[in-house]
Parts: sequence; structure tokens; C-alpha cells
Amino acid sequence: MTTPARTPRRLESFVSGRWTPGARDGQPLCDAATGQVVATIDSTGVDFAGALAYGREVGGTRLRAMSFHDRAGMLKALGLRLMEMKEEFYAESLHTGATRADGWIDIEGGIGTMLTFASKARRELPNTRVLTDGEVEVLSKDGSFVAQHVFSPLQGVAVHINAFNFPVWGMLEKIAPTLIAGVPCIVKPASQTAYLTELVVRRIVETGILPEGALQLVSGSVGDLLDHVTGQDAVTFTGSAWTGRKLKSHPAVVENSTRFTMEADSLNASVLGPDAVAGTAEFDLFVREVAREMTAKAGQKCTAIRRVFVPRAQVQAVVAALGERLGKVPLGLPGDEAVRMGPLASLDQRDEVRARIRELQADAEIVAGDPDAVRVVSGDAAAGAFLNPVLMYCDRPFAAGAVHDVEAFGPVSTVMPYDDVEEAVVLAAKGKGSLVASVFTDDPAVAAAVVTGLAPHHGRVLLGNRETAKSSTGHGSPLAPLVHGGPGRAGGGEEMGGMRGVKHYMQRTAVQGSPRLLSAVTGRWIEGAAAQGGVHPFRKSLAELRIGDQLVTATRQVTEADVEHFAHFTGDTFYAHMDSAAAKANPFFDDRVAHGYLIASFAAGLFVDPAPGPVLANYGVDNLRFLTPVYFGDSLQVRLTCKEINPRANAEHGEVRWDCQVTKQTGAVVAQYDVLTMVAKVWPPAAAVAAE
Amino acid sequence: MTTPARTPRRLESFVSGRWTPGARDGQPLCDAATGQVVATIDSTGVDFAGALAYGREVGGTRLRAMSFHDRAGMLKALGLRLMEMKEEFYAESLHTGATRADGWIDIEGGIGTMLTFASKARRELPNTRVLTDGEVEVLSKDGSFVAQHVFSPLQGVAVHINAFNFPVWGMLEKIAPTLIAGVPCIVKPASQTAYLTELVVRRIVETGILPEGALQLVSGSVGDLLDHVTGQDAVTFTGSAWTGRKLKSHPAVVENSTRFTMEADSLNASVLGPDAVAGTAEFDLFVREVAREMTAKAGQKCTAIRRVFVPRAQVQAVVAALGERLGKVPLGLPGDEAVRMGPLASLDQRDEVRARIRELQADAEIVAGDPDAVRVVSGDAAAGAFLNPVLMYCDRPFAAGAVHDVEAFGPVSTVMPYDDVEEAVVLAAKGKGSLVASVFTDDPAVAAAVVTGLAPHHGRVLLGNRETAKSSTGHGSPLAPLVHGGPGRAGGGEEMGGMRGVKHYMQRTAVQGSPRLLSAVTGRWIEGAAAQGGVHPFRKSLAELRIGDQLVTATRQVTEADVEHFAHFTGDTFYAHMDSAAAKANPFFDDRVAHGYLIASFAAGLFVDPAPGPVLANYGVDNLRFLTPVYFGDSLQVRLTCKEINPRANAEHGEVRWDCQVTKQTGAVVAQYDVLTMVAKVWPPAAAVAAE
Repeated sequence: MTTPARTPRRLESFVSGRWTPGARDGQPLCDAATGQVVATIDSTGVDFAGALAYGREVGGTRLRAMSFHDRAGMLKALGLRLMEMKEEFYAESLHTGATRADGWIDIEGGIGTMLTFASKARRELPNTRVLTDGEVEVLSKDGSFVAQHVFSPLQGVAVHINAFNFPVWGMLEKIAPTLIAGVPCIVKPASQTAYLTELVVRRIVETGILPEGALQLVSGSVGDLLDHVTGQDAVTFTGSAWTGRKLKSHPAVVENSTRFTMEADSLNASVLGPDAVAGTAEFDLFVREVAREMTAKAGQKCTAIRRVFVPRAQVQAVVAALGERLGKVPLGLPGDEAVRMGPLASLDQRDEVRARIRELQADAEIVAGDPDAVRVVSGDAAAGAFLNPVLMYCDRPFAAGAVHDVEAFGPVSTVMPYDDVEEAVVLAAKGKGSLVASVFTDDPAVAAAVVTGLAPHHGRVLLGNRETAKSSTGHGSPLAPLVHGGPGRAGGGEEMGGMRGVKHYMQRTAVQGSPRLLSAVTGRWIEGAAAQGGVHPFRKSLAELRIGDQLVTATRQVTEADVEHFAHFTGDTFYAHMDSAAAKANPFFDDRVAHGYLIASFAAGLFVDPAPGPVLANYGVDNLRFLTPVYFGDSLQVRLTCKEINPRANAEHGEVRWDCQVTKQTGAVVAQYDVLTMVAKVWPPAAAVAAE
Repeated sequence: MTTPARTPRRLESFVSGRWTPGARDGQPLCDAATGQVVATIDSTGVDFAGALAYGREVGGTRLRAMSFHDRAGMLKALGLRLMEMKEEFYAESLHTGATRADGWIDIEGGIGTMLTFASKARRELPNTRVLTDGEVEVLSKDGSFVAQHVFSPLQGVAVHINAFNFPVWGMLEKIAPTLIAGVPCIVKPASQTAYLTELVVRRIVETGILPEGALQLVSGSVGDLLDHVTGQDAVTFTGSAWTGRKLKSHPAVVENSTRFTMEADSLNASVLGPDAVAGTAEFDLFVREVAREMTAKAGQKCTAIRRVFVPRAQVQAVVAALGERLGKVPLGLPGDEAVRMGPLASLDQRDEVRARIRELQADAEIVAGDPDAVRVVSGDAAAGAFLNPVLMYCDRPFAAGAVHDVEAFGPVSTVMPYDDVEEAVVLAAKGKGSLVASVFTDDPAVAAAVVTGLAPHHGRVLLGNRETAKSSTGHGSPLAPLVHGGPGRAGGGEEMGGMRGVKHYMQRTAVQGSPRLLSAVTGRWIEGAAAQGGVHPFRKSLAELRIGDQLVTATRQVTEADVEHFAHFTGDTFYAHMDSAAAKANPFFDDRVAHGYLIASFAAGLFVDPAPGPVLANYGVDNLRFLTPVYFGDSLQVRLTCKEINPRANAEHGEVRWDCQVTKQTGAVVAQYDVLTMVAKVWPPAAAVAAE
């Protein structure tokens, strides 16, 4: 049942393209459950300034040469390879005290996060190297002076300084958005569990999937690394507030305005709604969730529930149900399948948690679990960092200080009563900013009131009820598409959040100029930029099509007969099309008007080139606005311009976005929209040519 | 010609709802041109902790009770009133050394910025109090667990610490987005020119337009104010890097992760393109712009051009043209209409600039202008802070340090040669991050290469060429819709940027839960949330319509005859609709398919309720996607659900967004889009009822 002893591994740093041992013997890192030395760690002698320079010059240059889709494809390939190797990581993970379930969060959760970033980047970002942000801003009345915001990759390195609790996820959730952005990384895991991070980095390097310089690893202290950061670098920190503040105030970070993201302490709350009395599904879900959050990873999660707010009348029922549940959690060796909670990461960590419990006792009493007497079902209770779950109760949370200020980073939570939901919101805010809060209710009014109150103080709020009993990922799980971070005490940082997280490693720049020059910069056609006629653009494959290829169609008159006919054919006999008096009474129309859908349909009739060709399908329309009414006798004309070309990496076609402007004889714009088509990369297709 | 002497005004702070003089006599503030004392300033005795608490409790509560459109309307009213009072501000502005043209940037530029924020907020934000951010994220396969990011106003105060150079604009460009966000402000202008800010705040307060507590003013030092900030407050700083770093590292700011935005030193560059040789329009525009940036506001603009990069072959021509132009700039009293450049803000400021010029002389020689001998056309050269424009030349910019590091905050720029555009980019980056750069070229390839190179190091890049000669607002003008700020040395901050700037004062929160509960929180209908049938929703005015009101229509079969008919009627005879063999050869289709526009038209025929009623018009369609092909014989059905209701503040109607889902008999979704309509607030209209 015990993990077999082995010769301690001497961890190395991977910098400037080489695995580099520290100059000294290094600090011993111990197995959480057995106390045996697993590895030694030291980074003395590493050239940190050199590592930064190497990352910027080698890694940055190579990553920036790739497109977003190239980088996404790279991360997908890497994620799939790492998933194949997961059992090796699970085995190493046991030393950290993580059970299989804890390891799943770290290992498969981490790899899954990377894969989600890869797939979202391919779906949500264009296949380019610079990202446009927001719409074109027209800055002069004549449209000759316009602006577009763009995001470019920072030309530095992202230094990711991580916590001990998630040695795999902590790395992958940060490097995924960084690499998608085109920025190289230096990862510095917390020493305590760095052997697992080092193993994963070894495997990543062996795959050869990442370009040289894209990922470096510091095993041990970062030495003088921060002295060398610039305004193009970024530093992220997850860990204790004390260390975080020190790093954030580092002279080079401050002097160079180096981007600094921090995720530190957090006294996350969970609120039981007043409707969720004992016997309801929400009550049971709440009890299950609080117990789960206290015991998963032995409570060593930044997102774990520390403060439990319940209606005063439910206090007894909640304490009883939680106490019973926690009392049944088998504690022992993380590799033991019967075990539901492993040890803390180290004996020091356990001492720390016990000290925090004593501080909490100023405000709260222990109502379940003994912090000192340990009961294990396997392993040596004396050698490992085991600790029973400890439930506390604070009767006067408004008068209390420690319960809102002291984070015991282990299986410890405090139940507190509230009298109405406003009180619950005020109490939660006494945490001074947290990563996440949850609310268990089935009442939409309670949900709206409590979430609205909690939102300014939290990066994430989870609603739990019967509808999500099976599908919810729960209070404690940061998810790749959602922001992770919180204001105030939680550090004020924001990580992940899908493509938002990618932009954390990019510089936003407003570019101003004439449409012609701006179009050349962004690779997107802009109203007023140069356009060229010639062969019908629907006859051009992606190989031939250029931004600005334009078709100006013939005109077509819209008659009363057309509108009558369209109305009866489609069934759309809305009065504004059919009834002159009623139309005139409408604030927007002077008389009967043509249908918007008729205008779009006639426009397609004007611009489509019907014969088989490289344009394969119209898959959608964006931002369609009907700007001027079309009356009987008006003539329509279409100007269709190739606006954006987005070849797909793994298909024989790509997306082409066309600016479609429909005008009438007065010159007024009747309708403006983007037409979205799929277009073949070559035409005729290579297969067809080969078959001929 | 000279400004008449007056009794110095004793400036007061406006805190906790009262105008409060400082306890001491205060520091004298002198007229820039005459040296006469204009005002005295002191904030001793002000209760700063009380001001913060008052702002949070009184101002915050009142602002948060308003919607975005309410706040926008408030700023519009305020901006229009301030514009009426502008002459009083121009008169006071003369004491700062600002000419009428300089004052225009500050006064009308500032008020215009506020008005732009008001109008963009009404156009681009919903009429709500919480903002959704991005799309709904579906987190479970069955769609029962979803998330939506929301922005809520911070529940604190924004403390805006401003620079001396734009006492009006500096305040208004910051308070506009803050107030739109629903967050109260405390403004602390730089003492040197605080008399103008204080005057404007007096007039603002007198209008009574802002709610109590929304705006407070500190005239003088901020004392211990920063000791009391929390994680819900925000601090912005514009000024010297030295002060900025001190504030950014303030213990309370660091400990509470208080949002801190800084805009500090910046050695902005302008690049003359290799194509823009003497004799081209771009050469002339460049010379005009560099001279203008050197002399406007006597060069005391954070965005002024400090470094001038020109092709080596153009150095002589540029220096000659600039020297000639600068030599003709009449220097003198700011109120003198013949004067084109006024004095610096103070004699201290002039001493400072002269000292910086001496530092620059380590790398560069003076080629035009004498920094010591002052020539004025009016005023007393000895009493005022006058300084001639000084042009310098540095022949070896790669070897130089000071020219890339030392900001002489006055009418001083340095010309430097480059050999190819890559060099120009590298040289610009030696400024270690700047607010803005400009490039003068008419060559799209030069524009693309240089802008792409400059972008990571700048918050804004301006392209100048003949096309924007008349319409460009120029290198030095930050604009409300564009981000203002820069990485690295420039402080790493980001201000304005249109509605981006509003979000700087809001907390982003990911809210997770079931569609039903999440819908209750956001006020937007979400797929899977509750929906209710009953009367056709087109028969309901805004007063009656509710989120989730839903219509499920009858079905309609699409026949070959329909498609043939539609094709010939509209002219859209694209082969995929007409030719079975060609359609089958298409990678997306199994046979001939119905037109997308036919599907949308038939859908409208199914969901429209034709008789006159509260639905006034369909003004557009968003995010239309054709998801499954429709073949002959397929039957369509539409589900139309009220998704978002946005009443307009100043009209009898509002926008209603409908979720429109078209399915076919298999249940497959054929098309998904948002239908946008205008709907009357009441029906029948009040006027019609009255007329009956």
C-alpha cells in the first residue's frame, strides 16, 4: 500500500535549450504521505537573464511566425500526446498527497484546459497573427480617417510563478493562452511539488512539438530573474499574498510597468438560499458541495469554500449534515482506492493549517473534526501530513474578524448564520474580494438578488440547484472558458476566460489612418479602402481572391407587384408592406415598404454568380441592418467586396467574409451586412483536375 | 495685452458634499506668463477617509441606481451646459500659459470627450445596470449548465490624480467613463493649474446635474487618502514616472490589489517613410506635424513627438524645413492673438526642461533654437516661463542613451537618421514603450511593416498621408473612442477606448448555473430558460412583453416548386439550388438545397403577425447561421422567443431582440439568428388613445 522508496531525483531547470542542474545539492522534497525524500531541487547558477533573452529571441521569434491556428494545432497535438502519458503523471502525483480524484483535477483537468484553449482558438480566432479588436471607428465625417484596434503578441516572455497545489494544471492553464498569443513562457513551479511539473516538462520537451524557446522551466528559486524583466514581459503569480505583494512591488516590475497578474488568498463563500431548507434538493446539493470542497485536494484549493452562510433556522441541520458527511471521509494514503482524502502537501503545511485553526478559534468553535487527533485508514499517521476535516461555527459573523480574514489552506470551513439575503451578501463581501462564491437556490428572485450583490466582489459566482445537479462542474472548478481570479484580497488578477486570457499576453494598439493604409495593416478590407473590379469574385478561389475584390451589380427595381408577390409567397403580410394607411401611421415609414428579407433576397439575386465554382456555400449573415425604407419603384444595387479571407488549416476551403452594401437610386444605403461564404482553396479542386 | 492682476483665489476642496478650505494659507500658484500669483492651494485638514466613505455610500449608491442610458443622458446634459460656459474657462486657462488653440484641446476637447462618451454609451450599451460580456458559454453537453460573464460597477471610488498640462481634459476624459460605469470619482488635479479644474468643478456642482457624491475634488495634496483605498476602489495617475511608481507601490494599493492605472513618461516617435522624400505631400505633412507637436501647448503634452526618425538621405531636408518653420513661431503672451506658442507652465518647469536639454546634449547637438535666449513678441521674457522651440540632431541613435530615455517636457525634439524601416522600428522600441507613434508614408507596404513593428510598443499608432491631410486629428490627439496609454515606460495603463474605458471601472464576473436562474440574473433570455406561450408576442407592447415570451409557429413544407420559384423571382439561380448533379458534387450538400434567404423569408412568413400592433419594424438581423441544409420536402418550423428588451429613454419605443430558431421535421436546427425589432412602449399609442 505504501509508495515504494526510490533514489531522490535531482530536478533540473530547462533553460536556453538545455537541461541544467543547479550548482548545489539542493533542498529535499518529501512525499506528503510517507515523508520519504522524492527529489532535490536547486537552481543556483542558472543564467536567468540569459533565459529571458533566449525566450524573447528564439521562442518569441518562432511563435510569432506562426498563426493563431498553427499555435492552436500545436497545443492540440501536445495535449493529445500528454493525455496518452497520463498514467505516468498520476503515479508521480501520488507523492504530492493527491488521490486519483485529486490528480484528475490536476492532470486531466490541466490537459483538458489546454485542449479547450486549442479548440476555442481555432473556432473563435482568425487564422492570422494579429487580432483585430472591435469595430472600425470612423473618425472623420467624410470617412477618410478611421481607426482599428489591433492586438499584437508581446515581444517578451511570460514568467509563470505557480503554487504547489496544482503542479500540472497550474502550468498548463497559464501556458495555453500564452502560447496561443504567440508569447514564450518560463514556468517556475513551487518547489514542494516541482518534481511533477518537471516530469511533465520533460515529456513536453521530448515530444518536440513546441518550437525551441517556447517553454522554459526553473526548478528552484527564480534568483535574479525579475531584475531583468521589461515592459514587454509579463509575470503571473499564484500563491501566498505575502510573496505576491513582494513580487508585485519588485523594482524592475514597477519601473517597467511589467504586466503582473496575481492570484492569492481567497476566503470563498457559499450561500444556502432561504428557500433551500432541509429536505429540498438544493439543501442536499449544498451539503454535498461544501463537504466536497473541504475534502477535495484536502482543502488545498484556492477556490475551496472557507465560509458557509446559511439561514439562521438551517444552522443546526447544516452542521449536523456536514458533520455526519465529513466524519465518514476515509483519510489515508493517496494511492489507496478506499481513501477519499489524502494528506496535506507537507508537514509544514499541516502545522500552518493548525495554526490558522487556532486563529479562527478567536471567532468560531469547532463543531466537527479534531485538528490534532488524526485517524487514517492506511499509511503512517505520524509520518504523513494527515489532518481530519474540521468544521467550525461562528455565531456572530458581523462582529467577527478572523473568519473573514484568515485562510486555513486545508480541510477547514466555518458555518455562519444570516437573517436575510442582504446580510448574506454583506457577509460574503467581508472577505474583501474572493475568487468564487456559490449560491444554492431554486428561486430566480433569490438568484438575481444574491448574484447581483456578490458579483462586484468575485471573479466567478456559481448557482447550484436541482437543474444542474448532474451537469454542474461545481463551486471549486475554474473552467477554461471562464475568467479565474478575483478582486481585492484574491489578488485582482484575471486568468483564462477563453480568448480573453490570450489577450492578457498581447498589446492592444489603436491604429489610425486612411482606410487604404489601415486595410494594408490589418489585412481586412475597410469601407473607403481600395477596391478592384474585373472577373466576378465568385469565380476566384482562395488562391486568387484578394481583399478588396469587388463586384458592383446591375440595378433592379422593386415594384408593388414584387412586394405583393413576395408577401403572399412567403406568408409575410405584415401591414407595413400591405396597407398604405397603416404604413403611413408607422413612425418609421412614409408608405408601404418592401420586406427586409425581399431586399436581401433580391440582393443575392443580383450578386450571385450561378455556375459551379469556388464559392461553395453561404453559411450565414452578420450584422444585417435595414437602414433606409425601400418604396415601390425604388431601384436596388449591390456592392459586394471581399473583406476578410480566413483559410482553414485542415480543409480544402476557408471562410470568406464579404461586405455587402445595398443602395437605392438616391445613393442611400438600404441595407448593410456581411455575407459569409465557404470558398475552395483552389479551383477546380485538385482531385477533379487529377481525375481529368 | 497682459492679464490683469487680481486677488489670489483661495482654492477649496469639494468633499463630502461641502466646499472645504485647507487649514493653512497654502502654496501660491503663479501665472505662467506674468509670474503673478493666481491662487493659493492647500488641503490640510480634509477628511480623506471620510471623502472615500461618502463617495462609496452616497455617490455610489445613487449612481448604481441609474441605468447606463440614465448616466449617459446626465453626461450629455452636463457637457452641453459646460460648453455654454466655455469662455469663462478659456479666460482662466490663460493663466496656465495656454493659447486659445491650446485651451481648445483642453476645454472643448475635454467637454467633447465627455459628450462622445455619452453618445457612445447610449448607442453601444443597453439601457440596463449590468452589462453582459461575450456569448453564453454552454458548459454541459445537455445545455443544462451554462455561464455568462457580466460586468458590475465597482462598489468603491475612482481616485483620479491628474497632470498639470490638461486641467480640464485630464479630469473629464477620466470621469466620463467612470460615471458611465456607475462609479463615483475623487479628482485631484496637479496643483500648478488646479485653479482651472476647481473652477470647472464649481460650475459642475452648480448645475446640480450629477447626483450627490458622484464627484469630489481635492485641491492640494491627497494626504493620507491612499491609506484608505480598498479592492473596490481604483486609482489612476497621470504625471511623472517617479511619483507614479511611488503611488503604485503604496502599501494599501498593493495589499488590496487596488486597480491602478498609470500614464507616465513617453518618448513618442514619428517616422518619416522612405517613400516620403522632400517634395512629397507626406514630407510636408510630417514637417508640419512635428513642428505642431513641438509647439502646441509649448510641447507639454504626454503625446508630443520627442524622437523624429527620418531616412538618412532626408536628414538635411527635414532639419532645414523644421528649423525654418520653428523659427517663425511667435512666442509670447497666451492671450495675444499673434502668438502661436505660450510659456511653459512655470519657471520651475522651464528650468527642468533646460536641464533635460543639457542631458540630451550628451547624444545630440542643437540644430535650431536657443534654449537660453528667449525672444517674445509680447509679455515680459524675464517674468514668464518662455522657451524657444529647440530642435536637436543625434547622428548615432543606436549608440545613444539619453535621446531614448530623457523626456524634456517642452518644445524639444531630436531628429535621428535610419537606414531601413526595420531600423526605424528598432529605434522606436528603444523608447521602452510609448503612448503613440506616427508614420508618414503613402506606401501600403511601408505602413504594414512599420505599424506591425511599432504596435507591441505603443498604445496608439497614427498613419499620416495625403488622404488624411485634412481629416486627421494628428499624432498628439488622444480620442475618446481609442485607447490612450502605452506599455512599459509609458506606464502600462489604458484609458478611454470608448466603452472599453467604462469596463475599467467594473468587475467582470463569470456567472454559472442553469439557463432559468442565469436568465433571472442577466435579464436576458438564454436557450433552455423558461418560456411562456399565450397571446402572439407581436401583440404585446414593451409594457406587456416579458423575456421568454415565445411563439412556436405552424410548419411549412419547402417544395422543389418553391425553390424554383424563389430562384427565378429573385434571380438567385446558384447551382446548389438548381442543379442536382452540381449540388451533389459540393462538399456540403447531398442534393439541391433551399436558399438561405428563402428559409429566412418563409420563417418570417410563419412568425409575423400581420395586423398593425406594437411591433413597428424589423430593423435588422444578427448572427444568422445556416446550420443544416434544407432539401425538397423538408418542413420548417420557427420558435421565436423574446430575448432582450431595451427601452429607449427618449422615444416612444425600444429595441426588442428575438431569438429565432428554425428547425426541420427531424428536429435539426436549420437556421439560428436574432431578429431585431422596434416595439412601441404602449399600444395603442397614447396619442391615438387621446385622439379617439
